[in-house]
Amino acid sequence: MNYENRLQSLGHTLPPPPKPLASYVPVVRSGNLLFLSGILPLVGGKLTLTGKLGKELSIEQGQKAAQIAILNALSVIKAEVGSLNAIEKIVRLAIHVSSTPDFIQQSAVANGASDLLVQIFDSPGRHARLALGAVVLPLDAPVEVEMIVEVASMGFKENLDSSDTVC
Amino acid sequence: MNYENRLQSLGHTLPPPPKPLASYVPVVRSGNLLFLSGILPLVGGKLTLTGKLGKELSIEQGQKAAQIAILNALSVIKAEVGSLNAIEKIVRLAIHVSSTPDFIQQSAVANGASDLLVQIFDSPGRHARLALGAVVLPLDAPVEVEMIVEVASMGFKENLDSSDTVC
Amino acid sequence: MNYENRLQSLGHTLPPPPKPLASYVPVVRSGNLLFLSGILPLVGGKLTLTGKLGKELSIEQGQKAAQIAILNALSVIKAEVGSLNAIEKIVRLAIHVSSTPDFIQQSAVANGASDLLVQIFDSPGRHARLALGAVVLPLDAPVEVEMIVEVASMGFKENLDSSDTVC
Repeated sequence: MNYENRLQSLGHTLPPPPKPLASYVPVVRSGNLLFLSGILPLVGGKLTLTGKLGKELSIEQGQKAAQIAILNALSVIKAEVGSLNAIEKIVRLAIHVSSTPDFIQQSAVANGASDLLVQIFDSPGRHARLALGAVVLPLDAPVEVEMIVEVASMGFKENLDSSDTVC
Repeated sequence: MNYENRLQSLGHTLPPPPKPLASYVPVVRSGNLLFLSGILPLVGGKLTLTGKLGKELSIEQGQKAAQIAILNALSVIKAEVGSLNAIEKIVRLAIHVSSTPDFIQQSAVANGASDLLVQIFDSPGRHARLALGAVVLPLDAPVEVEMIVEVASMGFKENLDSSDTVC
Repeated sequence: MNYENRLQSLGHTLPPPPKPLASYVPVVRSGNLLFLSGILPLVGGKLTLTGKLGKELSIEQGQKAAQIAILNALSVIKAEVGSLNAIEKIVRLAIHVSSTPDFIQQSAVANGASDLLVQIFDSPGRHARLALGAVVLPLDAPVEVEMIVEVASMGFKENLDSSDTVC
């Protein structure tokens, strides 16, 4: 499975990865797991939508924002491990949805992100998911996503490489 | 320790595991860790209680909802690994409590879940815990729980099986 | 790198670790990862600041609270593994900031925690970070922090010990 081709064929392109930040980083690897920072739906470094579900924003707008955040997250992963094809599985996705106290369709918003992951990654994209309401998010973002992703072990890759050189 | 017997002797029964969902799944395994989706206190697929702590619901009702969510989570784990006895330890429990802005007893609500885990699993049930207030939760649920659980490694199990066949 | 000396030279001292609790514990280890409980900015077992950002508290007060919570978290880690020098890297930091619905500078508050971690741990302190708004937090705390930390493997430590005894 070539996930990069799949992404293209779905009509998506990855944004450039975020620049390194002062005290924290977009992703930290521990063993075969990548722990991503909270990812906002930035486009060119700016939010194209702000506000809360249940107030300024429709579910469709929330779903679109969730998809943008996922593409940003995939860009972070690609910058870290070189290719989306190094992904073994999407382990966990949390979606924090900026919500008024009476908006209760966080799951519908989250589906924008979840469906995109499965479109790209098929079965390995089927993740554990957490959809939550947040009273407010940084920069008044409508959504913020977190991901834990399992990637191919470096040891396994080295083994493959070794066997490639065996005649 | 037979955790399944312990659960029964405490008067609890596990609900049926949730049906597979479209784009996400109840649990993903990575190595020896199970990452569970956010679990709501559903009974027969429906919420028996809705609303917020500090408004419609008492602490006792919140604790009961937290216990129901834990039983749902344990059902997910059993469906994944075959038996609760495969659990090595409960690693992390997060409890999101739907709260008015002035309700500050999330820890008391969370104790409903934490105490049940220790009643069932004794020392391996003593978990890292996060209790948080949420402005609102999906479907107006009073609580949503997340769990990370360590299970016995498949390699270890295979070793046990091999030695079983050694005379 | 001696992280304990660094901490001292920065003028910080670790508080005593929290006492063991009934049903949950301050930290659980799984493999090389430490999963910490949600940590409040307690001083001597009490909150010195309460309330929300955007209402009673300034960003500077939120940053100070975040630093106090980090010191409490480091005390938990030291009690678990014996020394801060066993830390390989700070993997993930989540900061939940008690916020009014229109306070959107959670990242500025979180910088109080992130900057302190990098001051102490340099590059291995550069973590994946999640800053979120919470409608309210337990005990009316201004912030609550979660951490996942990678520590040196016990196997590696034993190897070091063995080689120490080799002449």
